[in-house]
Amino acid sequence: MEKELRVRLSSIQPLKKDFFSRAQTRLDRLTKPLGSLGQLEEMAKRYVAIVEEVNPRIQQKFIYTFAGDHGVVAEGVSAYPKEVTPQMVYNFLRKGAAINVLAGHVGAKVVVVDIGVDHEFEPLEGLIIRKVARGTGNLARGPAMSRIQALQAISVGLEMADQARAQKADLVGTGDMGIGNTTPSSAILASMAGLPVSLVTHRGTGIDDATLMRKIQIIEEAIETNKPDPQDPLDVLAKVGGFEIAGIAGLIIGCAAHRIPVVVDGFISTAAAMIAVALNNRIKEYLFASHQSVEVGHQFMWEYIGQKPILNLSMRLGEGTGAALAMFIIEAAVKILNEMATFTEAGVSEIKG
Amino acid sequence: MEKELRVRLSSIQPLKKDFFSRAQTRLDRLTKPLGSLGQLEEMAKRYVAIVEEVNPRIQQKFIYTFAGDHGVVAEGVSAYPKEVTPQMVYNFLRKGAAINVLAGHVGAKVVVVDIGVDHEFEPLEGLIIRKVARGTGNLARGPAMSRIQALQAISVGLEMADQARAQKADLVGTGDMGIGNTTPSSAILASMAGLPVSLVTHRGTGIDDATLMRKIQIIEEAIETNKPDPQDPLDVLAKVGGFEIAGIAGLIIGCAAHRIPVVVDGFISTAAAMIAVALNNRIKEYLFASHQSVEVGHQFMWEYIGQKPILNLSMRLGEGTGAALAMFIIEAAVKILNEMATFTEAGVSEIKG
Repeated sequence: MEKELRVRLSSIQPLKKDFFSRAQTRLDRLTKPLGSLGQLEEMAKRYVAIVEEVNPRIQQKFIYTFAGDHGVVAEGVSAYPKEVTPQMVYNFLRKGAAINVLAGHVGAKVVVVDIGVDHEFEPLEGLIIRKVARGTGNLARGPAMSRIQALQAISVGLEMADQARAQKADLVGTGDMGIGNTTPSSAILASMAGLPVSLVTHRGTGIDDATLMRKIQIIEEAIETNKPDPQDPLDVLAKVGGFEIAGIAGLIIGCAAHRIPVVVDGFISTAAAMIAVALNNRIKEYLFASHQSVEVGHQFMWEYIGQKPILNLSMRLGEGTGAALAMFIIEAAVKILNEMATFTEAGVSEIKG
Repeated sequence: MEKELRVRLSSIQPLKKDFFSRAQTRLDRLTKPLGSLGQLEEMAKRYVAIVEEVNPRIQQKFIYTFAGDHGVVAEGVSAYPKEVTPQMVYNFLRKGAAINVLAGHVGAKVVVVDIGVDHEFEPLEGLIIRKVARGTGNLARGPAMSRIQALQAISVGLEMADQARAQKADLVGTGDMGIGNTTPSSAILASMAGLPVSLVTHRGTGIDDATLMRKIQIIEEAIETNKPDPQDPLDVLAKVGGFEIAGIAGLIIGCAAHRIPVVVDGFISTAAAMIAVALNNRIKEYLFASHQSVEVGHQFMWEYIGQKPILNLSMRLGEGTGAALAMFIIEAAVKILNEMATFTEAGVSEIKG
């Protein structure tokens, strides 16, 4: 299974400079001062280079929200009981959650994947059941997952990327649901970036000071106990990660291999993106950084990956909510490229030379 | 005419705390951690308080793009020739400009208002002709407008707000077109906020260093020559402003009076918003700050007004492009309020008490 992943990783190509320059040429002919649409222009160019089409259209948009439970919740690291994970999955399927509203607003379809929820779901419209196990192990006491389980969860993500390709996805967003999952995400960040746990651990869904102190201590213990090896991203993912994080990492890898631009959501999704980028640095060019979360560690994740977030709206919800909003901006960028008139077409005078 | 404006200004009411708290109560019952949607929640509350409806719907959206010419262009302060102002108006009407693409993307209608272009337009679909004069006077040599002209231009904006109300606008965006108009906007900012011209003057559509030096000198001369009185915002507007800036100020005042939330675009629109807010400080609560421009003075404008920009995408185009993108975010906020399930409805456990 690890060999299959390596094959997929090695199939990812660097973006071609030629597509950037062709998109730049087009942008510079449009009726606006040169470069005046700032980040929109950068996004449009990168989108073109990823899909290798000079006049791309964004029609099919999907957000994959992976749900999993976390053994570490037993340590009291979250403000919510773990029953909320399956309850929220039902809420997603009934279209009552924030991700449903925001995905609907931007015209994206939400696909919910049970990759490790501690609950047996009946077959339900819109739910894909690919449970690796009923929740991870308690990472404070031992590994969250075996390496095999982590690879299985990555495979689920790769499968979703294949599905997205089969459905002609033009843009894919990532999302997560899992009570307790800022704990493994902070652990991944601290391990991979070599940063102090206390610097990169924050309030998640809204814990008080005492719980935050405890959460920091638990993560320090987890790293001490498991000794994740930052030179081996799969080791970090398995020992201090989570099923939904592994699934998102697999989705990102699979999309990059299929040349589908991926919009990475918040803190949990970006922990997954760190693993994917550490496995193959080329992946970072296929990613769009949806937003900057108020979860303090998030900025260090974007620095590690080397992408600048599109939005900064003090959000900290996950589910794919940041990805949904950012999709609108990326789509705007692509429409600018395709729908604006050139100076010649419009009969507008160009800059004085 | 000034009396009519004073009547309109004095009709503007402060927002009622009761609507903020009713919206907060609703937000806190929704299936998400408390406050986790950050600025979206703040926007939703303020929208509710402006329109005084607890379950508002955003259906009709309009962007008013005011176009005018500037006598100061004779001093060589812009990278583009002044013919570009009418050329771009034609481009707007043929739907080839960035504002057409972005307004279309968000579902807003663009209304173009000739408030002072140095060109006689034939009657054209989508163009409202309310020309005060064929361009302003050269503010480096004397006043840009007489006080009467400034009031006439404000009246045009008030009329557009009346029209927006008649068309049941749920959200209005501001926009501008006018070669040379960062010059009066910087002059307004320097005069109103008492900041050095060199600190608040920047490259506009993309001028070189020598032109920037000249632009700073011209604005300093304009302030020296005209002595605009910061205690009298209409004096500042008339002496160193522009027709489209006055029109936008009128639109903002009129929308606040009609309780229509207004999304303020970039540097030029925010100069207009400064005048409006200086005339009645209550107006700031009716405004949404669309984005942070790369034009350096823009941040000082938002500080003066006391609003935090929604987006920061390194844009510097005007026309209403920032307002169009921000409309999507405001609409998302309002949908969150209306469309999400509550904890009770969804059967989701609340935070541990």
